[in-house]
Amino acid sequence: METILKNDLILRVLRGENVERVPVWMMRQAGRFLPEYRKLREKYTFFERCKTPELACEITLQPIRRLGVDAAILFSDILVVPEAMGLEVQLVEKVGPILPSTIRRKEDLKKVRVPDIQESLGYVFDAIRLIRQELAGQVPLIRFAGAPWTLLCYMVQGKGFKTFDEAKRFCYTNPEAAHSLLQMITDTTITYLEAQIEAGADLVQLFDSWAGLVGPEDFSVFCQPYIHQIVAAVKEKAPVIVFAKGAWHSLPSLRDTGTNALGIDWCLTPELARTLAGGAVVLQGNFDPAKLYAPILFIEKEVGKMLERFGKNKYIANLGHGILPDIPVKHAKAFVETVKNYLWNN
Amino acid sequence: METILKNDLILRVLRGENVERVPVWMMRQAGRFLPEYRKLREKYTFFERCKTPELACEITLQPIRRLGVDAAILFSDILVVPEAMGLEVQLVEKVGPILPSTIRRKEDLKKVRVPDIQESLGYVFDAIRLIRQELAGQVPLIRFAGAPWTLLCYMVQGKGFKTFDEAKRFCYTNPEAAHSLLQMITDTTITYLEAQIEAGADLVQLFDSWAGLVGPEDFSVFCQPYIHQIVAAVKEKAPVIVFAKGAWHSLPSLRDTGTNALGIDWCLTPELARTLAGGAVVLQGNFDPAKLYAPILFIEKEVGKMLERFGKNKYIANLGHGILPDIPVKHAKAFVETVKNYLWNN
Repeated sequence: METILKNDLILRVLRGENVERVPVWMMRQAGRFLPEYRKLREKYTFFERCKTPELACEITLQPIRRLGVDAAILFSDILVVPEAMGLEVQLVEKVGPILPSTIRRKEDLKKVRVPDIQESLGYVFDAIRLIRQELAGQVPLIRFAGAPWTLLCYMVQGKGFKTFDEAKRFCYTNPEAAHSLLQMITDTTITYLEAQIEAGADLVQLFDSWAGLVGPEDFSVFCQPYIHQIVAAVKEKAPVIVFAKGAWHSLPSLRDTGTNALGIDWCLTPELARTLAGGAVVLQGNFDPAKLYAPILFIEKEVGKMLERFGKNKYIANLGHGILPDIPVKHAKAFVETVKNYLWNN
Repeated sequence: METILKNDLILRVLRGENVERVPVWMMRQAGRFLPEYRKLREKYTFFERCKTPELACEITLQPIRRLGVDAAILFSDILVVPEAMGLEVQLVEKVGPILPSTIRRKEDLKKVRVPDIQESLGYVFDAIRLIRQELAGQVPLIRFAGAPWTLLCYMVQGKGFKTFDEAKRFCYTNPEAAHSLLQMITDTTITYLEAQIEAGADLVQLFDSWAGLVGPEDFSVFCQPYIHQIVAAVKEKAPVIVFAKGAWHSLPSLRDTGTNALGIDWCLTPELARTLAGGAVVLQGNFDPAKLYAPILFIEKEVGKMLERFGKNKYIANLGHGILPDIPVKHAKAFVETVKNYLWNN
């Protein structure tokens, strides 16, 4: 049963159409900065929130009600994929993810498998179906997955780490095993995203959160080819946004994957991002999340500058990374409102 | 009493002269990856090692004996400056720096002052004089300081932090206080570096380790002007290397400070670094420190590629960040030897 979307702004932008205003959403909008989310966090563990469709649905809808953003993004975590592949994942509040059993040697690959997606991640598809129903076409639903390199980082390192040295050590000393693992993650991710689109996701975003830790050559070896496979498999079914945080140098090669849009962080000017990405691709970003600490007048001014520099078309307003946990809700709202009410000269 | 340097390769490169081979040293070479250092660490606290000239001297000389690098760098920490300015600094093994009292509001500026350098940091100058004597002209001695933005990050955040959000919050909500603090750090740093050159440092490196956390506009507001002041004051007395980690976009504006050399990390190709920095400035870097985990044959090959791409002149071989604590000494040695023994075609 096809629901007619009341607000399809972001989908029209991703199809390359010119639009009446810039669409806006915020990475991590479903979560920790909202008081109504923090209440649920007191009662349920991360995986309870994520694996109970009613809770995942409620959390996904909270920012739609509060902020009036132009897209919903399913509350989840990129590490549900390593978990489905066979590695235990603990998501500890204020500590971050812990994977007690890691991949460090070739033999460790036995710990993981390309899983049956419906069996291992069925709760995600249940949540998507419920959210679609509750959303009733208000805005499109975004689903996301971690890019293979970023998931490898966690699977090898076993936790968040500033530089993921163990992950790199694994790649440099066991390149064949690293590529086997990256391919397994890629295969899992493709099936996972396809099943989510089938269940009702309108578009997907791929997060390569740790892409900025490797140099351009390593990016072309360990990141780009796997992102390319995923984009190629998924984009016929739904539009794709690829966000390789920190890897500004990768914009030309990521554009060549055929992705509909590229996310960028705040360490790149809009002008250079357009130059590197070329004119055809949509850009998404790139407000420094820490700027939402500033007074609202400052936020409005800075958002205005960002909009002017990216322009009204081929652009989705967003932060350059996830919203920080202690941003006042009215500051987040100022960000969204400024984009939505911006008076364009043309 | 002037000592004649037996190996002045790095100084000749910094003067813009063509040389017979590329000089090489490693950031963090005096420290944690050396077993002889770890022995001292068992017996003395960080500040004992740093404030006792004999210990600082011994640690500074260890990598010269072990690795045969072309420069010594005084064992110390960038946080001796905030300490001298009045903030307590604890350097806790395996935890990192902790500053129990932080700068969060304008009123907190009362906690800090531009100190009398000889009084507060006299131990550094004692160490430099002792090292000069012990080095007996074998290689030049590098001294370093943290750039003002990076020191502000610690003074506001109070500890290491992936994104230093509190530091940014302070800058965006109290820009005047932030600039006052940056100016105080700048004034302190200039006097500090001048006194070190006076005591016998042959060249200085300025570390803006967290420059990559801000976008290009913020870099030009909170980082560049203060680096510019320091370079302008110091470069008549000794050559300067500026290393703004992660801030590849800053290379043109940092070149314009008149610095002799620019450090770069591994997330930038040598070719793009040359283009951005222009032909006149010396470049230093940019081996990914994690690549030293790889087998020695891999290291030799990768170092060779790096050398060919940077070329023999206007270049100092180094890592793109500090050496990691668990790198085998023979891998570090392979890095140094490959640079020193490289057969150039011209």
